[in-house]
Amino acid sequence: MDRRFPAERLARIRTFLHHRLGVPREGAGGPPPSLHAWKIPPSRVSPELVSRLRDSLPQGAVSAEGEERLLHSFGRAYMDLLALRHGQIQHLTDLVAHPASIPEILATLRFAEENDLAVVPWGGGTSVVGGVAPTEDSHHGVITLSMGRFTDPISLDLPSRLARFQCGIRGPELESYLSARGTTLGHFPQSFEYSTLGGWLSTRSSGQASTRYGDPSHRLRGAKVVTPRGVVSWEQGVAGASGPDLSGIFLGNEGTLGIFAEATMAVDLAPAASWITVLLFPDWYAGVEAIRTLAQSAPTPAILRLSDREETELTMEGRAPAAGLGGKIRDRLGPRILELRKMDPESLCLAVVGYEGTEGEVRRGFEVLKDVCRAAGAVDLGRPAGEAWRAERFLLPFLRDDLLTDGWLVETLETGASWTDIGPLAHAVQEALQAAARKEKFPLFVGTHLSHAVPEGSGLYFSLIAPQFPHREEQQWTALKEAATGALLRSGGLLSHHHGIGRLHRPWMRSARGEISLGALEALKAYFDPHRIMNPGKLLP
Amino acid sequence: MDRRFPAERLARIRTFLHHRLGVPREGAGGPPPSLHAWKIPPSRVSPELVSRLRDSLPQGAVSAEGEERLLHSFGRAYMDLLALRHGQIQHLTDLVAHPASIPEILATLRFAEENDLAVVPWGGGTSVVGGVAPTEDSHHGVITLSMGRFTDPISLDLPSRLARFQCGIRGPELESYLSARGTTLGHFPQSFEYSTLGGWLSTRSSGQASTRYGDPSHRLRGAKVVTPRGVVSWEQGVAGASGPDLSGIFLGNEGTLGIFAEATMAVDLAPAASWITVLLFPDWYAGVEAIRTLAQSAPTPAILRLSDREETELTMEGRAPAAGLGGKIRDRLGPRILELRKMDPESLCLAVVGYEGTEGEVRRGFEVLKDVCRAAGAVDLGRPAGEAWRAERFLLPFLRDDLLTDGWLVETLETGASWTDIGPLAHAVQEALQAAARKEKFPLFVGTHLSHAVPEGSGLYFSLIAPQFPHREEQQWTALKEAATGALLRSGGLLSHHHGIGRLHRPWMRSARGEISLGALEALKAYFDPHRIMNPGKLLP
Repeated sequence: MDRRFPAERLARIRTFLHHRLGVPREGAGGPPPSLHAWKIPPSRVSPELVSRLRDSLPQGAVSAEGEERLLHSFGRAYMDLLALRHGQIQHLTDLVAHPASIPEILATLRFAEENDLAVVPWGGGTSVVGGVAPTEDSHHGVITLSMGRFTDPISLDLPSRLARFQCGIRGPELESYLSARGTTLGHFPQSFEYSTLGGWLSTRSSGQASTRYGDPSHRLRGAKVVTPRGVVSWEQGVAGASGPDLSGIFLGNEGTLGIFAEATMAVDLAPAASWITVLLFPDWYAGVEAIRTLAQSAPTPAILRLSDREETELTMEGRAPAAGLGGKIRDRLGPRILELRKMDPESLCLAVVGYEGTEGEVRRGFEVLKDVCRAAGAVDLGRPAGEAWRAERFLLPFLRDDLLTDGWLVETLETGASWTDIGPLAHAVQEALQAAARKEKFPLFVGTHLSHAVPEGSGLYFSLIAPQFPHREEQQWTALKEAATGALLRSGGLLSHHHGIGRLHRPWMRSARGEISLGALEALKAYFDPHRIMNPGKLLP
Repeated sequence: MDRRFPAERLARIRTFLHHRLGVPREGAGGPPPSLHAWKIPPSRVSPELVSRLRDSLPQGAVSAEGEERLLHSFGRAYMDLLALRHGQIQHLTDLVAHPASIPEILATLRFAEENDLAVVPWGGGTSVVGGVAPTEDSHHGVITLSMGRFTDPISLDLPSRLARFQCGIRGPELESYLSARGTTLGHFPQSFEYSTLGGWLSTRSSGQASTRYGDPSHRLRGAKVVTPRGVVSWEQGVAGASGPDLSGIFLGNEGTLGIFAEATMAVDLAPAASWITVLLFPDWYAGVEAIRTLAQSAPTPAILRLSDREETELTMEGRAPAAGLGGKIRDRLGPRILELRKMDPESLCLAVVGYEGTEGEVRRGFEVLKDVCRAAGAVDLGRPAGEAWRAERFLLPFLRDDLLTDGWLVETLETGASWTDIGPLAHAVQEALQAAARKEKFPLFVGTHLSHAVPEGSGLYFSLIAPQFPHREEQQWTALKEAATGALLRSGGLLSHHHGIGRLHRPWMRSARGEISLGALEALKAYFDPHRIMNPGKLLP
């Protein structure tokens, strides 16, 4: 990872957090150790077994080497990143396999079944919920099955707008293939540069332009999924009525039933035009109403995101040094605009709205936007501010790395609900998080935004920053996670809107899904994976 | 059923079929017998057992009476209608239960389990694939579980555009509740007046305006499904990432796993404006290309339907008496239009295109349509022709009844595929049907239309008319069904696009879905319905 968050803005955010949370942290956490400094435990899979697997896969496709195992043992959850920084290895995968064909994936699964090894599918390794961690001791070892050799586009049926890919392909390569042919999948998660099509499908990922393009799970039209039971294959250009659609079972299976090897996706024409801008709404409530109106109007915006006043202040901090949200706004815009509009500068909320499509769609979208802004009393900060947001939209994980080095806890949580439920849900989660922090006696910053809006409701995203409790990091994290998850489930929120379940949300699966639904998932598990080798310790409680 | 197909048009269609297929049929099949003429076999469920079920349900909720059993034993498949006309009872349901609450549904299922009775869920009784037939002898009797007391709207969350209903509600009552509140579900299947929300969901129904509104299965956001295992309940305003989505399992389960009791549907604003018209394309290929362009353009039409020249001739017959398609067109439009455009009158294809939405959307849609028509060399016959189609769109089943009385075989088949596959698919099915008719030595009319188009492809619908083989009706029907289904599966078509599987498509489930997928459905069956009481003989091979 050779990219960085801009140094000047990082410095301002450091100052803001210092003032806001009352503790200086710079450098307190320390940088991550070099890979060579790790003491790597030996693979639990014997050299004899390793060479047996090597015999059924092409040369170089199996590694038991330490550095490769280390690089395939951690996702991007807060606790993963801390473990990497502290050099704490609790569980390391024992083998990394790189099959290059469906028979090679099947051979790897057979080998795992025969030798009681767990299989953890690996796409981009960007799970923030422990989805790729080799956490279980229930087997004689763990094979991490990398999809790094499944990266080819297969075909594009342009008249039908159907594109087929191998599922280890990453965002940039997938979009570059499509855009060279005038099309797009329209999926831009924050992990876009690293995550893979197979990961998107198996976690039900959602992206920043989902209001227009939907999620990859809505665009799946055919697939080959490799399970221990065999290869499940379906292909349908259009939805049918030939019984239950099993694609819903594999979407979100998180590698516990099978591995997406190939997928046919419904693609869109690449947009001929786009417009993106940043708006200031007088307060959160006015902003939510405006975002709802936009999500329910045609043409639908592609990007639609509303920050609460806390997240707005953090965002402005990188750009205007004055104290307080009002100060920053005045610094940036001058007092005149606000006085004219009689807005309270301390309650302002930033929004990002972007339209894509034909010239006509974008023009009409902008007209709808003008009307909605006028009704809500919002100020349009204009396209350059929007383009600045777009240029930086994949950078926030790098800011997180810098803040971890400073000794901050940096975590994100997400949920979603209908428009009617979303206001009380946001409030309940914020209250529960602050109550947990008060109880544990640490200061906590919570920024909130709405994104991934649809006509019925929206995703809701919380960014948490607090000083790390040295040596009690997991306890501190658990207190926040439990408080937030309890509150969001009580308020009708989703256990996860787009991060998935993995290891970290698994304790709440029973209350979120209910006994009968889980029983059905267990029945499917018993059928597709009778030896229970697939990604143990994830998803299913 | 007190409605009729217009008598004058019926007379012309009779003449057309006579000329075209070479045999006069009027009255040859005879009218259906009166209900009182039936010899109804006694219920196989003993009076003692009936009174035990009566004890657990409210008064009047259980009937073993002959006429009620007869009325709940047949769907609307060709073979159902023939059986009714010939007074042939092979299987009659033994009891009809009308539970009025979820505990009462559960009590009925428990009773069935304890006494080895099959349960056939009954919504509108409009299945054309044998989905509601009490066909199996594997139990000690059959209870038909009518949802006729589950007909209430429950709630409407207007800001979130989410409406909740009991699932026995029919099309007109559902749309009337919604339209009184400025909203619509946008689902208008040909069975609209009789079929129910629960039936739409459990068969994956699609409707005439699906190009704009999608199918009910795309709009399901929460439900209570009653299974022998218990009530499965989920509610999510927005799509989430909390593991596999089991709604895909119940959508299309056709009552073999459980019964939709309540459902939350994402609704749309009722359209403020609409425009519908009929077009004449020079030929099928030009029409398909134009329909594809319209389905892939914004705003999306609501109604989009293209008839081939055969169906076009049958449609024109009701309206213009001259012989041949060219003659009818000239009769109707005058020769001038065609000569101007140098079209071959014998290859013309009718299309219906309708836009709905805001005034602006409809206006822009009409502009797109004008451009597409110009490029394709099509003639716009104008709004009155479109309105005439709309006024009659639920009448075709009544025409079928009249033609059956005349002694015609009248059957429909449907499939679907991507735009790339759909042309060869249509041709392959037509060829296979005509070859089967030649082999069995009867004349056959096959009309074809495209409908339910989406950006990736379309549904494809075939209307078959032939003189009935007296006493060999089933053999004749089977020859056509097998020829068509074999051809469509070989050409990449769906086993069913929107009719479902039921009893009649079940023999092809194995080849359409594959062993591993069917194994997964069996695993779910064993979990949700361990005593296999739910709708036996349907869907699962």
